[in-house]
Amino acid sequence: MAKTKQKELPVILITNDDGVSAPGIKALTEAVLGLGKIIVVAPDKPQSGMGHAITIGHPLRLSKVNGIEGVETYSCSGTPVDCVKLAVDKVLHRKPDICISGINHGANHSINVIYSGTMSAALEASIEAIPSVGFSLLDYSLEADFTAAKIYARQVVEFVLKNKNLEKHLCLNVNVPAIDAKLIKGIKVCKQAYAKYEEKFDERKDPHGRRYYWLTGEFMNFDKNKDTDDWALKHNYVSVVPVQFDLTHYELKKKLEKTWKI
Amino acid sequence: MAKTKQKELPVILITNDDGVSAPGIKALTEAVLGLGKIIVVAPDKPQSGMGHAITIGHPLRLSKVNGIEGVETYSCSGTPVDCVKLAVDKVLHRKPDICISGINHGANHSINVIYSGTMSAALEASIEAIPSVGFSLLDYSLEADFTAAKIYARQVVEFVLKNKNLEKHLCLNVNVPAIDAKLIKGIKVCKQAYAKYEEKFDERKDPHGRRYYWLTGEFMNFDKNKDTDDWALKHNYVSVVPVQFDLTHYELKKKLEKTWKI
Repeated sequence: MAKTKQKELPVILITNDDGVSAPGIKALTEAVLGLGKIIVVAPDKPQSGMGHAITIGHPLRLSKVNGIEGVETYSCSGTPVDCVKLAVDKVLHRKPDICISGINHGANHSINVIYSGTMSAALEASIEAIPSVGFSLLDYSLEADFTAAKIYARQVVEFVLKNKNLEKHLCLNVNVPAIDAKLIKGIKVCKQAYAKYEEKFDERKDPHGRRYYWLTGEFMNFDKNKDTDDWALKHNYVSVVPVQFDLTHYELKKKLEKTWKI
Repeated sequence: MAKTKQKELPVILITNDDGVSAPGIKALTEAVLGLGKIIVVAPDKPQSGMGHAITIGHPLRLSKVNGIEGVETYSCSGTPVDCVKLAVDKVLHRKPDICISGINHGANHSINVIYSGTMSAALEASIEAIPSVGFSLLDYSLEADFTAAKIYARQVVEFVLKNKNLEKHLCLNVNVPAIDAKLIKGIKVCKQAYAKYEEKFDERKDPHGRRYYWLTGEFMNFDKNKDTDDWALKHNYVSVVPVQFDLTHYELKKKLEKTWKI
């Protein structure tokens, strides 16, 4: 008797940087229910601003925890990037068909991409040729309304699963404005705006009279172009920036080749 | 009486990710002595693999410590990126003329650039339009011989101080092979090789029978091009890769604009 081979469901790895118990990762899991076999491997504590950090000086722990019903969920003691590496080697024992990260509580557009653990997890997957997307909502609150973000997250994941072959190292940075879904004008493919934080450390003294400093900063956009993620978000679009891990500055490379006379 | 304004010395900020007491940062400081007014602000402990992490959940400490004679030196409780931010705001109270990072104990070429605290500190400076260079020696040992690295570090810093106007956000990733200075063929401007780590976590059990995992991995180069940093280093050149913080994947952006039909 010939066996009918069932079409295998895509394996969807989900992680984030706000921690396995953050509302945002629950929202992302709910958003993609039914699109594949979902596995969650996420940090056991908030890891915002961890960038592409990995844990090399001490070992990692992995624990099975309760998540959404029917979704295998693990908590990991490491960074978001550690979660992706460990999930592939020790949980899935294979590469997933897609890795999605988020939904982040707070914006990761523009220069945030470089500080964001959410986006670094996605970028790490793309180094491994796993198509990946990081999702962020422009609302830091733990009580944020993820309704619109969930709608667009599902659309983007469906798109990527269908168009994986566009690019071997596909990685998208998706940001959703914190407005009602009905007010969102749609998706806009953008470039990363040149915006940055104007830092000012808040200097204080502890009860023993010793100084300490809190990082604070104001986000400033210096980029007046209309093809940026910052522009799109301010004009009620969901911004999608394709990102890459080749940091080579090719234009400067050309200039240096001409100028370098050591 | 007219005052003769002395030509001001350039201000050189030095940081690293191996910590303020690592031999590599001492070597870098010695390498640039006499080129400007040097200030060292570096992490109080090893921060390898910290990538572009910043400290947002707790405050930072800064302490004046003993360094090389005549060089103001501070130890900071944060990451390499924190060191750059804090140095500008609270130590220098201005942008330095150049920020240099390292000399790292171990390679930061190819994909390492993305995990490296050394390179993230340099990249952070370049976001602020401070010309920057990260230096790394292909020798992890604490007893590494920095002789050749020091010679090239001084050359590169002199070059950058003279050619700052090449690029507003100039940032270089310089790696030096671990060989005798006489055997080095010179400097080669390169692109970042597509190489990565093939991870395998080492699974162990603690004395209480609970599993834990050590990150291990083998560096694999998949990039056979001769214009890469990996090629240059294997052929006894000092590799120089200009790097940038705009992660936009412009080619994929074009493809997405054509394909996206949500």
